[in-house]
Amino acid sequence: MDNWLPSLITATPTEGYDLAVKLARIAVKKTQPDADMRDRLRKDYEADANALIAASHVVATHFATIAAANDHWREAK
Amino acid sequence: MDNWLPSLITATPTEGYDLAVKLARIAVKKTQPDADMRDRLRKDYEADANALIAASHVVATHFATIAAANDHWREAK
Amino acid sequence: MDNWLPSLITATPTEGYDLAVKLARIAVKKTQPDADMRDRLRKDYEADANALIAASHVVATHFATIAAANDHWREAK
Amino acid sequence: MDNWLPSLITATPTEGYDLAVKLARIAVKKTQPDADMRDRLRKDYEADANALIAASHVVATHFATIAAANDHWREAK
Amino acid sequence: MDNWLPSLITATPTEGYDLAVKLARIAVKKTQPDADMRDRLRKDYEADANALIAASHVVATHFATIAAANDHWREAK
Amino acid sequence: MDNWLPSLITATPTEGYDLAVKLARIAVKKTQPDADMRDRLRKDYEADANALIAASHVVATHFATIAAANDHWREAK
Repeated sequence: MDNWLPSLITATPTEGYDLAVKLARIAVKKTQPDADMRDRLRKDYEADANALIAASHVVATHFATIAAANDHWREAK
Repeated sequence: MDNWLPSLITATPTEGYDLAVKLARIAVKKTQPDADMRDRLRKDYEADANALIAASHVVATHFATIAAANDHWREAK
Repeated sequence: MDNWLPSLITATPTEGYDLAVKLARIAVKKTQPDADMRDRLRKDYEADANALIAASHVVATHFATIAAANDHWREAK
Repeated sequence: MDNWLPSLITATPTEGYDLAVKLARIAVKKTQPDADMRDRLRKDYEADANALIAASHVVATHFATIAAANDHWREAK
Repeated sequence: MDNWLPSLITATPTEGYDLAVKLARIAVKKTQPDADMRDRLRKDYEADANALIAASHVVATHFATIAAANDHWREAK
Repeated sequence: MDNWLPSLITATPTEGYDLAVKLARIAVKKTQPDADMRDRLRKDYEADANALIAASHVVATHFATIAAANDHWREAK
């Protein structure tokens, strides 16, 4: 992969949240590079409440980092 | 989705907590966009202590971010 | 619910810890509003070491936030 | 319980770590106040690698808070 | 192992993310030093959505540390 | 145990990482003081991908604390 993450800075918290979702998924992709396998696994965890909650936790951890990088978008207050 | 999260700033910790709950749920919605499926899963995890605790942990992680964004609402002291 | 969380400031770390326990439980209440169901689930997880440890982790995450809000009660040194 | 946690300040990281262990256990005690039940559960999780690792994670989260409260004991360098 | 981690500083968030992946894997290697065993286990968790999500969470925690070390690469804004 | 953790300061990130591994293990030792039992449990979790990932997460949490204590070893840049 090339320079897929040039910056943690986003215009809004909304975009920061989307970036957090992306960061959470990239680690899965790096651990399981086979796209077909990932599609099969996605079917599993999309129907598993515990997996969805766990995935949401990963997003929360990345969102904290991105929010800090953006000084919590305080100017948007 | 449009700009659903324009700011992390809230008037009170109470509202900040509600925002944390919302952030925790949005990630689930983005991973499982089918509303009917989410309703079925909700029935599962609403009756599962471990899932409820895990969901509470995601809220806690987001609440930390929101509290930092609001300088922990210290003026409200 | 009304303004149940007016401030994260507490007089002592002891009170801050109690507040962390409260914050951990509120998320469960918001996800499962049925008090009878919560009473049944409580019986389950009170006898489940893994659930108790997971609940303790949620308290730890909230306690970190509350400690930061109170500047770690350093004046109490 | 009375004011069991008057301060997060400790003389050394070693004592701070012990305090983190204590904070992790107090939440379990508050959720399951029955000492006999806790003794039975302790037998379970003392022989369960996953529970021991999860308990270690709770300690790590509290240790981060206590280390921050003590400015990471930097003067001890 | 020699000085395998001389610095947490990276040129870009992309490289910081790769370093986070590396840090997550090193702990596994230190706990399970047998490379053949690790290869067998990798086959297991590469096909297990929950394990992939859990691994992604570890990456997220390390990425937060590396981002802080790099002042969130703010100059790259 | 005596003063086994006199300081969080280390010369390099590499040594900081080793200290994080140590901190993760000490909590297990404090919860399960029987060395024979720990040896048996180690055999279990060394062959369990989920346990290895969970252990790696504990290391990540401690590494964040140690990195902050060392100002992320920024002078080593």
